[in-house]
Amino acid sequence: MQTHEPAEPLAVATRSTIEGSPLEPDELARIDAWWRAANYLSVGQIYLMGNPLLSEPLLPEHVKPRLLGHWGTTPGLTFVYAHLNRAIAQRDQDVLYVTGPGHGGPGLVAAAFLDGTYSEVYPEITDDEEGLRKLFTQFSFPGGIPSHVAPETPGSIHEGGELGYALSHAYGAAFDNPDLVVAAVVGDGEAETGPLATSWHSNKFVDPRRDGAVLPILHLNGYKIANPTVLARIPEDELLALMRGYGHTPYVVEGSAPEEMHQAFAATLDHCLDEIRDIQQRARSAGDGHRPQWPMIVLRSPKGWTGPASVDGHRVEGSWRSHQVPFADARKDDGHRDVLEQWLRSYRPEELFDATGALVPEVAELHPSGDKRMSATPHANGGLQQKDLRLPDFREYAVPVEAPGTGAVEATRVLGGFLRDVMSRNLSSFRMFAPDENSSNRLQDVMDVTPRTWNAERWPEDDHLAPDGRIMEILSEHTCQGWLEGYLLTGRHGLFSCYEAFIHLVDSMFNQHAKWLKTTNHIPWRRPISSLNYLLTSHVWRQDHNGFSHQDPGFIDHVVNKKADVIRVYLPPDANTLLSVADHCLRSKQYVNVVVAGKQPALQYLTMDQAVVHATKGIGIWDWASSDQDGEPDVVVACAGDVPTMEALAATDILLGHFPDLRIRFVNVVDLMRLQDHEEHPHGLRDPEFDSLFTKDRPVIFAYHGYPWLIHRLTYRRTNHDNIHVRGYKEEGTTTTPFDMTVMNQLDRYDLAMDVIDRVPRLQARAGHVRESLRNKLIEHRIHVRTHGEDLPEVRSWQWTRSPGPEVRTGDAARETPEG
Amino acid sequence: MQTHEPAEPLAVATRSTIEGSPLEPDELARIDAWWRAANYLSVGQIYLMGNPLLSEPLLPEHVKPRLLGHWGTTPGLTFVYAHLNRAIAQRDQDVLYVTGPGHGGPGLVAAAFLDGTYSEVYPEITDDEEGLRKLFTQFSFPGGIPSHVAPETPGSIHEGGELGYALSHAYGAAFDNPDLVVAAVVGDGEAETGPLATSWHSNKFVDPRRDGAVLPILHLNGYKIANPTVLARIPEDELLALMRGYGHTPYVVEGSAPEEMHQAFAATLDHCLDEIRDIQQRARSAGDGHRPQWPMIVLRSPKGWTGPASVDGHRVEGSWRSHQVPFADARKDDGHRDVLEQWLRSYRPEELFDATGALVPEVAELHPSGDKRMSATPHANGGLQQKDLRLPDFREYAVPVEAPGTGAVEATRVLGGFLRDVMSRNLSSFRMFAPDENSSNRLQDVMDVTPRTWNAERWPEDDHLAPDGRIMEILSEHTCQGWLEGYLLTGRHGLFSCYEAFIHLVDSMFNQHAKWLKTTNHIPWRRPISSLNYLLTSHVWRQDHNGFSHQDPGFIDHVVNKKADVIRVYLPPDANTLLSVADHCLRSKQYVNVVVAGKQPALQYLTMDQAVVHATKGIGIWDWASSDQDGEPDVVVACAGDVPTMEALAATDILLGHFPDLRIRFVNVVDLMRLQDHEEHPHGLRDPEFDSLFTKDRPVIFAYHGYPWLIHRLTYRRTNHDNIHVRGYKEEGTTTTPFDMTVMNQLDRYDLAMDVIDRVPRLQARAGHVRESLRNKLIEHRIHVRTHGEDLPEVRSWQWTRSPGPEVRTGDAARETPEG
Repeated sequence: MQTHEPAEPLAVATRSTIEGSPLEPDELARIDAWWRAANYLSVGQIYLMGNPLLSEPLLPEHVKPRLLGHWGTTPGLTFVYAHLNRAIAQRDQDVLYVTGPGHGGPGLVAAAFLDGTYSEVYPEITDDEEGLRKLFTQFSFPGGIPSHVAPETPGSIHEGGELGYALSHAYGAAFDNPDLVVAAVVGDGEAETGPLATSWHSNKFVDPRRDGAVLPILHLNGYKIANPTVLARIPEDELLALMRGYGHTPYVVEGSAPEEMHQAFAATLDHCLDEIRDIQQRARSAGDGHRPQWPMIVLRSPKGWTGPASVDGHRVEGSWRSHQVPFADARKDDGHRDVLEQWLRSYRPEELFDATGALVPEVAELHPSGDKRMSATPHANGGLQQKDLRLPDFREYAVPVEAPGTGAVEATRVLGGFLRDVMSRNLSSFRMFAPDENSSNRLQDVMDVTPRTWNAERWPEDDHLAPDGRIMEILSEHTCQGWLEGYLLTGRHGLFSCYEAFIHLVDSMFNQHAKWLKTTNHIPWRRPISSLNYLLTSHVWRQDHNGFSHQDPGFIDHVVNKKADVIRVYLPPDANTLLSVADHCLRSKQYVNVVVAGKQPALQYLTMDQAVVHATKGIGIWDWASSDQDGEPDVVVACAGDVPTMEALAATDILLGHFPDLRIRFVNVVDLMRLQDHEEHPHGLRDPEFDSLFTKDRPVIFAYHGYPWLIHRLTYRRTNHDNIHVRGYKEEGTTTTPFDMTVMNQLDRYDLAMDVIDRVPRLQARAGHVRESLRNKLIEHRIHVRTHGEDLPEVRSWQWTRSPGPEVRTGDAARETPEG
Repeated sequence: MQTHEPAEPLAVATRSTIEGSPLEPDELARIDAWWRAANYLSVGQIYLMGNPLLSEPLLPEHVKPRLLGHWGTTPGLTFVYAHLNRAIAQRDQDVLYVTGPGHGGPGLVAAAFLDGTYSEVYPEITDDEEGLRKLFTQFSFPGGIPSHVAPETPGSIHEGGELGYALSHAYGAAFDNPDLVVAAVVGDGEAETGPLATSWHSNKFVDPRRDGAVLPILHLNGYKIANPTVLARIPEDELLALMRGYGHTPYVVEGSAPEEMHQAFAATLDHCLDEIRDIQQRARSAGDGHRPQWPMIVLRSPKGWTGPASVDGHRVEGSWRSHQVPFADARKDDGHRDVLEQWLRSYRPEELFDATGALVPEVAELHPSGDKRMSATPHANGGLQQKDLRLPDFREYAVPVEAPGTGAVEATRVLGGFLRDVMSRNLSSFRMFAPDENSSNRLQDVMDVTPRTWNAERWPEDDHLAPDGRIMEILSEHTCQGWLEGYLLTGRHGLFSCYEAFIHLVDSMFNQHAKWLKTTNHIPWRRPISSLNYLLTSHVWRQDHNGFSHQDPGFIDHVVNKKADVIRVYLPPDANTLLSVADHCLRSKQYVNVVVAGKQPALQYLTMDQAVVHATKGIGIWDWASSDQDGEPDVVVACAGDVPTMEALAATDILLGHFPDLRIRFVNVVDLMRLQDHEEHPHGLRDPEFDSLFTKDRPVIFAYHGYPWLIHRLTYRRTNHDNIHVRGYKEEGTTTTPFDMTVMNQLDRYDLAMDVIDRVPRLQARAGHVRESLRNKLIEHRIHVRTHGEDLPEVRSWQWTRSPGPEVRTGDAARETPEG
């Protein structure tokens, strides 16, 4: 056991760009008391499970056996919170607090408790000693609450465990919220991440007339877990240049002496909020949306501020040792427990709580009231504010389909017409997001009703740009995703269209959002929010301009690892089905919807009436493409995705040409989750339904959009699984033509047809010459594309010409409509 | 058909920070001729498949039927390349060219052709008219080359299709290459990405004494695909502040008039290279590693510079319309073909090529010679320079294991000892990378031989920092990955340790690297490079401080989608196995190795001799944990991962305690790819081998580290697949204890044991009371952790105490050693 050796407390001289002492002595004392209370409650959460008022000496059993959590960033977070509370009350300002360093969970839980919100949503956490004991014990404790600013934390839209999204979330919240100020604390560790580093540029997408403001507070305390932080360790002229380069007017507050820091930060915060108000008033009265230099604050305070100066001879306050639990073994080690008790008593709990454990009135009354409390703002519980989208009837955008498997339509362009009218009906609650791909993805019709959002310089050749546009394009998938998440979490709606391959850039952001949704499903006071809708286009099969680096259909695989009750995957084969799916997704809540659809001209299959039935069922037999009406099929040809559907249909055409008596059942899958077991996913077909579509024993040739394994993974428990043969993307394909791309991955019509021949026993004896001719066709094709640079005309112009059936067959299966 | 309407050419006044006209008229003319040649060849690649010298009027059949590629960025890339060529020749400077906007592929192919390298590595592309025709035709053509700066492009280490990594790759190349200047062109679109935005801070990790220099060239041409770019549209004082904030001294060159721009850029480039040389000389002569303000260039030039001013009445040069193919239909549309011919002739090909198609000597001789050519530099073909690591004998770091299933060792800490000595033997060719987690991941022993790399301010409490350190930590997984990729691609070695959940941040970077490796495996002149080694620790089962947001084992799922011949996944169960696996990975080439291993104290199972055998086989029966020596097993208990192994072993212990006659076979999997079919992965077991381990018909209870589906996906073709029951992570778990975490996901010993009971028919009749007692244990555990905050003592202290067997059984299976 080493003992505590007192060290000189840190003394960093106070320094601030804005000088002044706006706080009256009494006000200062009350803010400081609130801050001490928040810090006391934070330390208590990390360390204690008994004796929460220190009404007796601290004993081993009062200390948790496992000490988990993060102290270092916490006092800075509570400091900012305290000052915002004063400003909110004085100004009657709506403020949303975004905690970049989400590991400072104890501080935000403490603040919500001091605000009174915590006890409102968790009545068992009462305003007395017993409530405090529960508050302390539950933190990072089995059956309790997470150590981060989690969905469980009132006032949060941002978990912050994965660093990088504080600013993009904050801007997402501020868009279309003209009266809201989002105070976004950016930790100096987080500031090193790529997503955060570019999200500073979000200020070029804010219209001061229409949008709220983000006040970034860059909190520099010098250290991450073990390393220094870059932004705390560059000369201040570089740091200020960086912030000016990002388009901000920076204000610095530095120091360690609480009283001086309270005055400096209060003066600075007042100045910044005045500046924001002035900017907005000027813009709104003059109707001038030009980008201003928004203020931001650089707060330099010690890591683990107000914690023990040193422990065991090592500096703690102001060092990386404060990052998590500053010292362990406080249960067994009497010296450490002494340090803990001194530390806790340094906040003078006897001045903060009365004998029953209730907050003294001076502290309890400091917070703003009702919804103005940052822990209670409805902006942080977006479902409370959400209004459903006003949607036009998607059927009115239908593409006429004279006969199935004909025509050539760009599906996403058709969707663009629908989205244009969705946009026009929801001009303050719907936005579209894309990394410079909105038009490339054929959604440009939306620009008929709103331009792209742009608040930087404009040149004459620019196309549809304005500060008050609603199509948000920045070449950062991270920023698009972060903006959209922030927008959804504050109760609005949106769509993110992206090249399929590069949506992997936000794999981890998707993870965090899916985890947030999964968790909030079990928190009664959290209201459902609008789904996060991805439209993945420019997909793997049509990367004509780009090639191998732009080919990756694996986002679907990534998505299906998350909880089944929050994820949905749709592969509409044509424009009408896409419309129906999109309508469904835009109405839904609490999901992540992944829609994969092509932007290139492609064949159409279903009339709108058929498409609605097909999309609603999510899977179905296409009667008009099937030849098994009179009995059991010889083979099931299944497909999912637009290109695979075309190839599967062409294979069917070829096969029926050669073998008119072949009984093919043609199954198309829109809702990929229908394949999965009913117990694994709420959309999953029950086994009898699945069997009635795919049979129990016939070969199934499945043409799939993505990596073939996924289909096996989804169907491995099905009766007929051993007979399912999947073709999909095999990481083959660089410079090629559309059809040759499928040839390289053996997903083309000829390969599919040969596979059917190989799998249907009664064909094999008589199919030798057919198989040979198909193989020859493939070779002829390869030679043709390598000579002429384009596909064979017969492939390019292929359409379905066999007798069209009137509708999609329901068969015995899939009669139920999935609920969401 | 619309016709070409002439428009005023763009006229942007020339302006540069550094003034001067260093080029003699003759020199200027030759540089301009080289540039015209490169641009001519670029346009030719995009548009032509015949008549490459324009020796006859341009006819429809000379134009490709499908026009694919990107023109807009290309002339800027060739402009920079031309000037670097002059500087290299004058200074005998080693330069590596990194093309951020990788879609400018035609320019870099043209440059490599003009250098002569192209014909050296692709002899069929000859220096004559026929060679030109092939050069043009192959570009973005079936069977030809990709449209990007791909692995096929000599001189490239950077495909650039997924934007964001130009600077991190450039710095990775510059580390430990003191004589190298990496010229990194950053496109203004790329500059908006998060990974690029933070990678500017890489200059805080450069030691001017030891490392080479990166010269960033921010190429602003105003537009992305359809949108303006942020950095081109902020006031220049903001832009320059941003660059200064990033720690650079910026130099601007702007204009559109070629002759003036040649002089301005030449003067600026000379100035920057002088400045780099002076910085390095000062640092090296004084032994002073302090961070300087490195120069960087802002190049503002029109998008599609030198292209047609306008087409069909719309401005093309200087607009977003130049991004890809500036105008289509040049085969069918006579007007467009006229524009194309005029455009091509504007480069005066008759001055550049002689009648045979050979370059005229003035152009052909402009490039530097031999390896100094940027297209031929061995730095861009790292395998040429690579020397194998000097490795200590990993066996010497063995943890003694008296009996299997005892002890408590932090596996990664043991690995740290080995890595320390790897580091000490390879102090100029091995680095370790981590996002502030090297010590958190228990690899701190490496700091005994080298500190962390840090070239910003230092404070007294800082721990092991120096400009010449070799442990590279920045809180940006993207930057870590980019640095490591650049370091490997230039022929060196490294290891990236990361929290398991957050490695998803680089999912898409992994994709691109895996695609690069896959492609280079088929390019004979590319030499093999060292594998990219991930050590994923702080894994899903032990996120005690953090919880749900830090739990995600899905990177393995992501990785296995890529080509089997480049990916490897290892889950060593203990420290000795980890040592053996690590040694293997560090020796390997052309792979991505994913190693998942815990950092918490955990039981040890194998002596070093056993571990070597087990790791080499990758899968095996643990005899000492099995009770089926006398015959066929009743059940196979299988496991992969350290926590699952412990729980599976404890379940075995429980079962054998209750049922001494139960015949359990205990199988542990280290090399996950052994599970896959031999035809799918080179490490895959053949079916008889698999069957001899997992039987053909007995139940298999598989405790797996990650999402359970993956095991099904890997084994769905195996004979016994229907009997494989997998338990793994189910997205459950927030604030809990180590064992309770497994309980929440039903991967704990009691659930596993109950599963065995349920699956072994002969147990079921007599197992009722045992099952009940196991269920009671679970409930007792839940109550205990919720009361006391820690696991039951009997769980925490559990060890294997049954008779230890002498060695891992080879059985009938897995006799072969995988090759890599």
